[in-house]
Amino acid sequence: MIAFSDAYNLVLSYSQNYGEENVSLKKAVGRVLAEDIHADRDFPPFDRATKDGIAINYDAIENGRKSFNIKAVIAAGQKTYPFLEQENCVEIMTGAVVPIEADTVVMYEDIGVEHEIATINTLAKRGQNIHYKGSDQKKGELVLNKDTRITAAEIGVLASVGKATVKVKKLPGIAVISTGNELVEVEEHPLPHQIRKSNSYTLYAALQKENIEPLLLHLSDDKDMIRQKLSYVIQEMDVVLMSGGVSKGKFDFIPKVLGELGVKNVFHGVLQRPGKPFWFGMHEDSNTVIFSFPGNPISTFANYYIYFKPWLLHSLGLPLPEVEVSLEEPISIKGSLTRFLGVKTRWENGILKARFVKDNGSGDLTSLARSDGFIKLIPREQPYNTDEKVSFISTRTLV
Amino acid sequence: MIAFSDAYNLVLSYSQNYGEENVSLKKAVGRVLAEDIHADRDFPPFDRATKDGIAINYDAIENGRKSFNIKAVIAAGQKTYPFLEQENCVEIMTGAVVPIEADTVVMYEDIGVEHEIATINTLAKRGQNIHYKGSDQKKGELVLNKDTRITAAEIGVLASVGKATVKVKKLPGIAVISTGNELVEVEEHPLPHQIRKSNSYTLYAALQKENIEPLLLHLSDDKDMIRQKLSYVIQEMDVVLMSGGVSKGKFDFIPKVLGELGVKNVFHGVLQRPGKPFWFGMHEDSNTVIFSFPGNPISTFANYYIYFKPWLLHSLGLPLPEVEVSLEEPISIKGSLTRFLGVKTRWENGILKARFVKDNGSGDLTSLARSDGFIKLIPREQPYNTDEKVSFISTRTLV
Repeated sequence: MIAFSDAYNLVLSYSQNYGEENVSLKKAVGRVLAEDIHADRDFPPFDRATKDGIAINYDAIENGRKSFNIKAVIAAGQKTYPFLEQENCVEIMTGAVVPIEADTVVMYEDIGVEHEIATINTLAKRGQNIHYKGSDQKKGELVLNKDTRITAAEIGVLASVGKATVKVKKLPGIAVISTGNELVEVEEHPLPHQIRKSNSYTLYAALQKENIEPLLLHLSDDKDMIRQKLSYVIQEMDVVLMSGGVSKGKFDFIPKVLGELGVKNVFHGVLQRPGKPFWFGMHEDSNTVIFSFPGNPISTFANYYIYFKPWLLHSLGLPLPEVEVSLEEPISIKGSLTRFLGVKTRWENGILKARFVKDNGSGDLTSLARSDGFIKLIPREQPYNTDEKVSFISTRTLV
Repeated sequence: MIAFSDAYNLVLSYSQNYGEENVSLKKAVGRVLAEDIHADRDFPPFDRATKDGIAINYDAIENGRKSFNIKAVIAAGQKTYPFLEQENCVEIMTGAVVPIEADTVVMYEDIGVEHEIATINTLAKRGQNIHYKGSDQKKGELVLNKDTRITAAEIGVLASVGKATVKVKKLPGIAVISTGNELVEVEEHPLPHQIRKSNSYTLYAALQKENIEPLLLHLSDDKDMIRQKLSYVIQEMDVVLMSGGVSKGKFDFIPKVLGELGVKNVFHGVLQRPGKPFWFGMHEDSNTVIFSFPGNPISTFANYYIYFKPWLLHSLGLPLPEVEVSLEEPISIKGSLTRFLGVKTRWENGILKARFVKDNGSGDLTSLARSDGFIKLIPREQPYNTDEKVSFISTRTLV
């Protein structure tokens, strides 16, 4: 049995790099950039009108001119007008290229037009309503860093610089394994002594949020079958997430079989609640990482977020979130275990406040559905006080 | 031109209900429940051992007994042992059914076994290590509410109660339309007066996060083609998200065509920056809602999160998040426009702090990639102060 912080650091020390792959831009959201992205041209690529109106040379205004002959209408996506003289102007649309001799755009609202002559009826400022070439980025400039999570904002930048395919971090192939003869499928009517699988579906859903579609497998309490299936997934997958089968019961063959298959037991058992009988191992030959969570649904759920998710973020080169919440009530914890308590949060005045969600410590799944995440409480003599800030592990999107 | 709060309330007043549909449990994550979920049996469904050990009747201990004949080994998923007498016990595994005559489980760590006789060597407590039938939920009890966003935690509950298919809110069918002859595809090499499409991809990515796969269309500045395509999408889709084409230029046919097609213009222009020339309309006959955003990438991006996302959440029956952040520096805003400023956030002591991200007000997409969202600043004479709490609209997952 090891301390929580040791277990946590050990798990992170087994982070892996799964390399890179190219995906189309439309599939890139949620993934992690595996390349620096540079501007492939100046942005904007030309002096761009930001209003609809007329383009003129401001020198003309300084020379006392107010009226201009309209020589052309330049729409966005057209070549611009060449050789604009000072007495002339072009009508220009938002997004169009400002003629080289022009330096000022006056909006339609500020001009009158009669007989192809535009007359300016307000004060203009030199350079107004033009977004100058290269003023956002120069060609070659770094616009996105490697190791960035791609959201809608990054997709816009990638599209602008022509990245129809993007190099992203490869995600690990994951097997989710349920164990236990008491488990039946969701669509079945369980007998009185049976229950339906839930941990596999919970892990499946959590992994979907990470763009991972895991392989789902079930192991009955049959040692030969367990050996055969585990041997297969250790060879074929990068990560195994298991629930159940690692306590001390007569039918808990799994730790033994994992050992026989050459999986190194990094640790078994952590001074924490829930999730104490967590088994973590590594198959060095095939580079497979094995998270074997206790079968209790709250334990599996908590350990996924406590250990697996930081491990995944770290493996992908992403920073680990460090969020604190403010307690709405005092909490006393007894004993020497690091505790993870389900909490419901709410915002008040820019502060994320957390209130303990009652569960009976038993594996009541609805308590998870009533929680937004877990607070982490390190054992100590004095109670945790109201308004004290404690570490928070989110299990749903709050902001 | 209308005030921001009027525009916002008008948009929300056009929220729609798109009905319900059944999806498989594996596709339900991220969707919104359209039914209340009740326990289909007691949870747990039987008196369940929570430790591996022996099951006994505590009366025997009160009568002075310490040793028990082992009559059987009950694994999880097996029928339990009938008619357990006081001098006997069964070995029982975690998850197995405790015999009806037993009321206490003593773990292996606290017993010795010799010649099929188990001897207890610690103090036991009546009822320990048993998770009693129905102690989490009674059959028929409400376990999940309608109008709940389904996350991994809800998936676990749904699996437990046998919901292999789940009734969820239907999502609107959405067309994302780019406009403007200056736009070319991402994979093309634009001519000097052209730029690549980015708004469509940004909206596409943002909608993917909502489980929506939109139809992507492009409109060139050709009135007949615009009429033909818009007429189709208004008939076939529930929502149209458009970018560009609604300012006052000579080639901005779209508002006119929308009018000819029977779309009611609810408003055009909002006293806000960015995103002022926002056009919002409704085709009453076909119940199609039209968000026509200005073409500037920052305007489209901001208005998606300012208007469309709350509209979508409201349409799905979800609460609208109300998050405030604490300013890291004072900000003065001038004029009468409601301002939305890109900010980078960080956590400090349970408080989400925000620092203004510089952009040149031009449509610089990289400023969005450097931001976590927008703060909303209502116009006022005094500057906003350091540590003042202001409303925040998140554009990426922060917690």
